[in-house]
Amino acid sequence: MNDPTEIRVPYEELVQTLNGILLKAGLDADRAHLSARLFADASRDGVYSHGVNRFPRFMRSLRNGIVNPQAKPQLVSRFGSLERWDGNLGPGNLNAHQCMQRAIELGREHGIGCVALANTNHWMRGGNYGWQAADAGVVGICWTNTMPNLPPWGASDPRLGNNPVIIAVPRKEGHVVLDMAMSQFSYGAIESYRLKGEMLPVPGGFTRAGELTQDPAEIERSQRALPIGYWKGSGLALMLDMIASILSGGRATHDIPPDPERETRLSQVFIAMDPSSMGSPAMIDQALDSIVAHLHASATSGGAVRYPGEQVLKTRRENLVGGVPVNIAIWKQLQEYSG
Amino acid sequence: MNDPTEIRVPYEELVQTLNGILLKAGLDADRAHLSARLFADASRDGVYSHGVNRFPRFMRSLRNGIVNPQAKPQLVSRFGSLERWDGNLGPGNLNAHQCMQRAIELGREHGIGCVALANTNHWMRGGNYGWQAADAGVVGICWTNTMPNLPPWGASDPRLGNNPVIIAVPRKEGHVVLDMAMSQFSYGAIESYRLKGEMLPVPGGFTRAGELTQDPAEIERSQRALPIGYWKGSGLALMLDMIASILSGGRATHDIPPDPERETRLSQVFIAMDPSSMGSPAMIDQALDSIVAHLHASATSGGAVRYPGEQVLKTRRENLVGGVPVNIAIWKQLQEYSG
Repeated sequence: MNDPTEIRVPYEELVQTLNGILLKAGLDADRAHLSARLFADASRDGVYSHGVNRFPRFMRSLRNGIVNPQAKPQLVSRFGSLERWDGNLGPGNLNAHQCMQRAIELGREHGIGCVALANTNHWMRGGNYGWQAADAGVVGICWTNTMPNLPPWGASDPRLGNNPVIIAVPRKEGHVVLDMAMSQFSYGAIESYRLKGEMLPVPGGFTRAGELTQDPAEIERSQRALPIGYWKGSGLALMLDMIASILSGGRATHDIPPDPERETRLSQVFIAMDPSSMGSPAMIDQALDSIVAHLHASATSGGAVRYPGEQVLKTRRENLVGGVPVNIAIWKQLQEYSG
Repeated sequence: MNDPTEIRVPYEELVQTLNGILLKAGLDADRAHLSARLFADASRDGVYSHGVNRFPRFMRSLRNGIVNPQAKPQLVSRFGSLERWDGNLGPGNLNAHQCMQRAIELGREHGIGCVALANTNHWMRGGNYGWQAADAGVVGICWTNTMPNLPPWGASDPRLGNNPVIIAVPRKEGHVVLDMAMSQFSYGAIESYRLKGEMLPVPGGFTRAGELTQDPAEIERSQRALPIGYWKGSGLALMLDMIASILSGGRATHDIPPDPERETRLSQVFIAMDPSSMGSPAMIDQALDSIVAHLHASATSGGAVRYPGEQVLKTRRENLVGGVPVNIAIWKQLQEYSG
């Protein structure tokens, strides 16, 4: 990569830089370091849009009071292996990390465990919590609701969230981690196609006249992004919002301000299942390797079929060796926060 | 409906007819009745392809030994609120119903419960088990793997299952139940568009040359159906297969014979979460009603936006009053089985 708008920063330097800024912003030492690592991990793994490049937006959310740097999640109620927590409007990545950690503990204790979290903030890269579960040796499923940003199938106004869901399966040779929103493309992705002067590879939304289109500029104008699978992703987004809000006792999408700078009080669900409670890790790995081998043997017209997360490991290795790409303007902004 | 290929049969007569056939086929009395009801319920709710019209295929699976009419599922191992069961190749709808029932019990006992089932047969209409959970007042999530019938994104040969997933949320004014496969259209749906001489409403697969198409005949020729959301549904289908096979210790899609008449040894997962362990039913209903009201207020260019399952209740009422539509040739076949 020789993108003139980017600089490559060694991973540890990146973590230390963010850590220093977060300490100044009022986070406790252990929490500043963990939050810094979660931002850096997203960029290290190639999810630049939700990693360091998003850090200035996080700093604004501290300044405008959306995020309380000191607030920690609290247990509200417990029933067996299901718990309800309140995020108290603390940093979304720290809240999510702690709740996935608690779900992992519940999963190890009971086979399956679930934490529902209300009143939290944007968790940045959701995939982090999938990798966290898989690194702990458990199957992880988690999702968040979001502000309204997706029209239901058949409608022209955004009333659903794109509600990303993450599913992670631990595997010795490389975890399998799916991280997907219910919209076919994020507005960030749509914008970058437009800036490159390219069409989307498949239809990603509607024109203002209501026709499906691959033209990113048309979708930005209509604000009508497309749910995955048309009516199917629309239904799935609704279900995820319902379950997150009723289990957590928190807000549903329609009660979340439709403004990225004011989006808050999100509801999330974290589920962990311990496969080792049901079978030997060696047999489980063998079963997973066999599924992956079968997938890799797919007939294609060039290029290999990859499992979700396969590319992440490759990118991670490259970025740990060559430095983590950070937008130059963002990197300068980080120096200003530090100064 | 005045379709000359269909007859409307009163629901109770349909159940009794199927019940008599299943008793003759060797099912125990209580199991014959439940299986009959599950077939009839699917048709009553408008899911004709997986209801009574599929019964002859089920009879063939009893005759060719794929399904053992006497076999019942057995608990293999238990760890807290996670259980592994073996379906012993019994009737798929009875196995699934019993395992969802067990998941509901575990959910009520522990807040969340999960049953993973190996060695089962086609569960027919998956939505039945979602309605079952919602009728019991719990959130239900279940899925099954299938034989390979869907090419992974980027591939031309079917290596994934279309792995239907069901998500159900209980609600006083009408449960919200999503029942969706990972393919944009089933081959049954694709065939009926072709028979009507219609194009699919959105792209549903590829031509043999690898171009996206809305032409049902082209997709039947290429056997390249499209995953929902392109790469996203492809990834999701893989995750569902992995989790079902490792939790249950059963077979993955690549080990299931790719022939609808020989499809067996499926792996399934049933999860139940009890929202009443976290909050009062009245408050939960209020939250859900508010989400539904907001959805119903969507701006459309004609027609209302519906939640998943909304149409089912309307169809159910109509079919309970006017009789359940059954294909006439199928109805004649039922008389022969009975005679």
